[in-house]
This record gives sequence, C-alpha cells and structure tokens, in this order.
Amino acid sequence: MQRIVVLAGGIGGARFLRGLRQAAPDAEITVIGNTGDDIHLFGLKVCPDLDTVMYTLGGGIHEEQGWGRADETFTVKEELAAYGVGPAWFGLGDRDFATHIVRTQMISAGYPLSAVTEALCQRWQPGVRLLPMTDDRVETHVLVDDPDAAADPGRGDAGDGAGGRRAVHFQEYWVRLRAAVDAHAVVPIGADQAKPAPGVLEALAAADTVLFPPSNPVVSIGTILAVPGIREAIADADVPVVGLSPIVGGAPVRGMADKMLAAIGVETTAQAVARHYGSGLLDGWLVDTADADAVPDVEAAGIRCRAVPLMMSGPDATALMAAEALTLAEEVRA
Amino acid sequence: MQRIVVLAGGIGGARFLRGLRQAAPDAEITVIGNTGDDIHLFGLKVCPDLDTVMYTLGGGIHEEQGWGRADETFTVKEELAAYGVGPAWFGLGDRDFATHIVRTQMISAGYPLSAVTEALCQRWQPGVRLLPMTDDRVETHVLVDDPDAAADPGRGDAGDGAGGRRAVHFQEYWVRLRAAVDAHAVVPIGADQAKPAPGVLEALAAADTVLFPPSNPVVSIGTILAVPGIREAIADADVPVVGLSPIVGGAPVRGMADKMLAAIGVETTAQAVARHYGSGLLDGWLVDTADADAVPDVEAAGIRCRAVPLMMSGPDATALMAAEALTLAEEVRA
Repeated sequence: MQRIVVLAGGIGGARFLRGLRQAAPDAEITVIGNTGDDIHLFGLKVCPDLDTVMYTLGGGIHEEQGWGRADETFTVKEELAAYGVGPAWFGLGDRDFATHIVRTQMISAGYPLSAVTEALCQRWQPGVRLLPMTDDRVETHVLVDDPDAAADPGRGDAGDGAGGRRAVHFQEYWVRLRAAVDAHAVVPIGADQAKPAPGVLEALAAADTVLFPPSNPVVSIGTILAVPGIREAIADADVPVVGLSPIVGGAPVRGMADKMLAAIGVETTAQAVARHYGSGLLDGWLVDTADADAVPDVEAAGIRCRAVPLMMSGPDATALMAAEALTLAEEVRA
Repeated sequence: MQRIVVLAGGIGGARFLRGLRQAAPDAEITVIGNTGDDIHLFGLKVCPDLDTVMYTLGGGIHEEQGWGRADETFTVKEELAAYGVGPAWFGLGDRDFATHIVRTQMISAGYPLSAVTEALCQRWQPGVRLLPMTDDRVETHVLVDDPDAAADPGRGDAGDGAGGRRAVHFQEYWVRLRAAVDAHAVVPIGADQAKPAPGVLEALAAADTVLFPPSNPVVSIGTILAVPGIREAIADADVPVVGLSPIVGGAPVRGMADKMLAAIGVETTAQAVARHYGSGLLDGWLVDTADADAVPDVEAAGIRCRAVPLMMSGPDATALMAAEALTLAEEVRA
C-alpha cells in the first residue's frame, strides 16, 4: 500500500485531497495541515484550514463557497453582533461554531490540537489521517500599510519609524482587507519555536511520496515548511516530492497568492514558485498546459516538469490532476 | 424615589419583577440574582437565573416556556450531539449560546460576573439593576439516591458508606432528573467562601423596601441568603422586608419547590415557608386567598400577613401582586 503525505492549506488543498482519494483509493494518505491561519475569535479557537480539509473530505463543506458548512445558518453571529461583539467580518456559522466549541473545550481540558483534530475527525471520517503541522501556537501575520491610517490622520506614519506599517493577523488581511493593500512581509509568528505535531515526522519518514497541492506557497505550504524539522524531513526523505502549481497563466487559480508572493519577492509565475521551493525540496512540478513554455525553465532548475490541465473544475478533473502528480512521482522514482 | 431590592431566582422571580416594574414604574429596582444554578456546559459559563431575568425584562424571553429565548433554534446543539458531545438534556439554543459565548469570553479576559452581567444588560435594558449575588463561584448540588444505581448493579450502595447517594449539580437534578428522585440535602457549594458582588450590600443598605418574590425558598432565595453578609444585611436593614408565598394550597405554583423543601425538612405550606424565613428576616408575608386560614399562624410567628390572589396568570395579575406587596410594606413601615 502506497503511503502518501500531503501538505495542505485550505480550499485548494482540500479539493486536491478529494481528487487524490479518488485517484488513489487504496493509498494511505496523511495530511499535514497548515495551522498558521488559526485565530481566536469570541474566545474560541478556530482552525480554518484544518476544518476546510475535514469538512470537504467529510462531506460537510459548503461546495460553492469552498469553506464553512453546507446549509449553514448565522443565528449565533447575529446575536453576538446584537451584543456589540465582533468581528463581523469573519463568517462563523452556527454549525461551524459547534466545531470551535468542541475544540476549545478539549483544548481547555488539556488535549493537544492533534488529539482534538483526531477526535473531530471521528465524526467526519475524512478517509485520510489529518495532522496539524504543530500543536504549538503559530499565527501568521502580514505587515501592511496601516489600513486605518488614511481614515485616521491622527495616526499614520509620523515618527513611528515603521513607515505607517502594521502587522495584522493573516485572517484580517485575507478576509477583512481582502488582500487589497500591499503586503510587505509575511511572518509566521511562533513558527521558529514550534515543534512538528506527533506523527508528522514519522509520516514523512515512512512516506513513499510527498505531494504539495496547488495551495498557497507562502501562507499555506510555506508556513508548514517554516516549522523546524518539517522542511528538513522532506528534503532528506529519499522519495519523490511533487508539487502542483497554484499559479496558472501568471495569476493564482483562486485566492490572492500573488499578493503573498510579492511580499516575499517571488514572481507570480508557475516557474518562479517552483524555483522558490527549489530542487533541494522538489523533485517534480506540474504546471498547467497554459504554462507549457515554463517547463524548460523549471527543468533547468533541476526539477522534472510536466504541463497538464491544472484547473480543479470538478471531482474528475481534480482526480486526473492527482493521478498526473502520482505519475510524475513514479517517473522521478524510476 | 423609592429604592426596592428584590432577591430573585429564575422564572417566578423574573415574572414578578415584570409586574413590579409595572406596579412601581418610578422605583429604582435592584435585583440580587441567584447564581447557584450556574453551570459550565461545553466550556461555557451558563447563568440560567440571571439570563431568565435579563431576557424576561428585556423582551427576549420565550414566554410560554418561561426560560430561554423566543424564536430559538438549536443548530449548535444538534451539531454538538453529532460530535458526541453532551449533555443533551440541557436545552441551549443558538441565540442563548451567543450570550454564554460573550459571557465566557469576558470572564476569560478577567472581568468579574457582575461586570459581565452589566455589559450584557447594556443590550437588554431590563429597566432594573441586575447584580449577581456574588462574583465567586457557587454551585448548588443536591444529594440524591444515586439515579444511575438501579440501571447499573455494579455500582449502588455497597460499601460506599453513603447509602447509594450521590451529589448532583442542581441543573442535573432539576432538568435531567426532573426532581423525580427524593433530595436528601441541598448544598450551595462555595457559598460559605463567597463574597457579595460589588453593589449588593450597598443596595441593601440604601433600600427602602426588600422583596422576596414567589421564588424557590431553598435553591433560589435560600442560596442568595447563604452568601455570608446578605442575610445579615437584610435582617439588620431597618426597612420592610416582604415576601410572597411560592406555595399555594399546599403545592408549588410552578416548579418542584416541594422536593427542595422536603430536603431541608420544611413542610410544603405557605405558613411553613414563612416560618422558615422567620420573623428575624421577614416583616410581611403574602399568601394566596386559598391559604387565608394560614394568616393567623404566620402572624403568630411575628410576621404580618395578608391573603391576596397570588397566581401570576398575566402581567396585570402580577402587577397587582407586586402592588399588594408594596402596600404590605407600607403597612409594616407605618
């Protein structure tokens, strides 16, 4: 039985995983999930990426939206607003609240996030083993031009030495500001002190194949790789490591990865992302057929590359993408 | 302006307060609320009596039920059940959950319950000042014959020296067991170490009149009186203290006060409850017209007594009861 380890962010990672499960029904799949976008809201611990994977693979996801629960209602949120308690910009539904209540209660009782995630998956039966990248607290922050400075001339950049810049939680950047202001840096706060969650290094050591889905290379996969030990375990593993480009035709397929890439000085192209990961990490890279001209550039960087359709337009298209990734892994292995 | 202090439990106290507000629209009313029935559920702090007062006076109560929110839904609870997380016997609705989330978040941030209650009342505008009896944790427990012993012969009373008795949280006794097993004792755990919340003793010292609504004399008013300093402040106040009997015709008007009275060895009669409070505390006592023959017995105990209709069948009937209590207070004062 093939053992596949996948590093996953939210929507893109979750949808890819559904395709992978279809393409490799007999494989044992371990998912290392990003927790850098976790946030505490209303005193509750919210893990958007882990939940998106769990809900998507467990059949509870809001399909069109890509995150949150299907058939969701928002009574609790409306009531919180009636109490004047926010933030209003984060869309927590009633069904979703229950997940965060269970998680927070277990964490308060002393369980690590990995054990909590396992318990939640008892209900969802995602068909993969879902591990948080770490049980420690990591929160990605984004350094931006102060989004409130313009509206408040009393603040701004006078004398603070930071040029009117402010670090905001990734969710605030992504959801409240919709990445509409430029990001100057992305900092996974706490990552340098974090330890991989139990099972993460063991899964990588036992893996036959490691896959990077078309997730955000900076705030999803990049954050996972920022946990000391994980990048090294992947680089040292003597197995194929294959990724799929989240950039097609010079733009992110979904989300705002271009903003994040710019913040770390990487061009928004399929080949630039491959070079960013580098041949020390990646053995194979899939680009979309629209980016076929990028293949020689990637291969010149020492990374085997193929151009295949990379639009996750439906379950079957996604399963084909996963199959292509596994095929490329076998080419690398051979 | 008359200053009235009312000791209140849940449904009975809340409905009486609504009548009192109607009967004395210009009075400044301070409510000392029972918190002995508070319970932690799903990691959230739930204060059923405080919330019943707040929702009832603020127009958010489920009128027929007497507790919980109107137009309530139960999505969160259903989802918690899907995770296998209980208890299922406590009916927390989605709107209600928001209250507990706000409260728990504020308490986690370091605010005392009295400050939290004040903040919640900013929304509800109950028209009274609502104070918890204490900011300290008090939880009423009831000593019962082990309700699970019969179903589990491996447990029971063998060798545990307690005769198969078990202390259960008041809410478990009241809601899960529906008071269907005999109570042998009622213990407000933590009360002996509790301090009155800020404002409680000050309100009693400044009161013109103190009222005991037809609330449960044991687990509602009795618990408030168990907080050191409160009983003494009422007994020492040189103002009329008037109560309304929750027992009519030898039975509780609502709820299961008879079970609680039996646990402390008090008969379920209007006069026995008056004697239980005693003339050291009570100056006046209203019994229902059905209990007119109890009047001499109560007066013999040194407590002025009148028989008036005591069924809170609607707002006007309740306002009349409140007016009768204030009239009796004036008789005592004169």
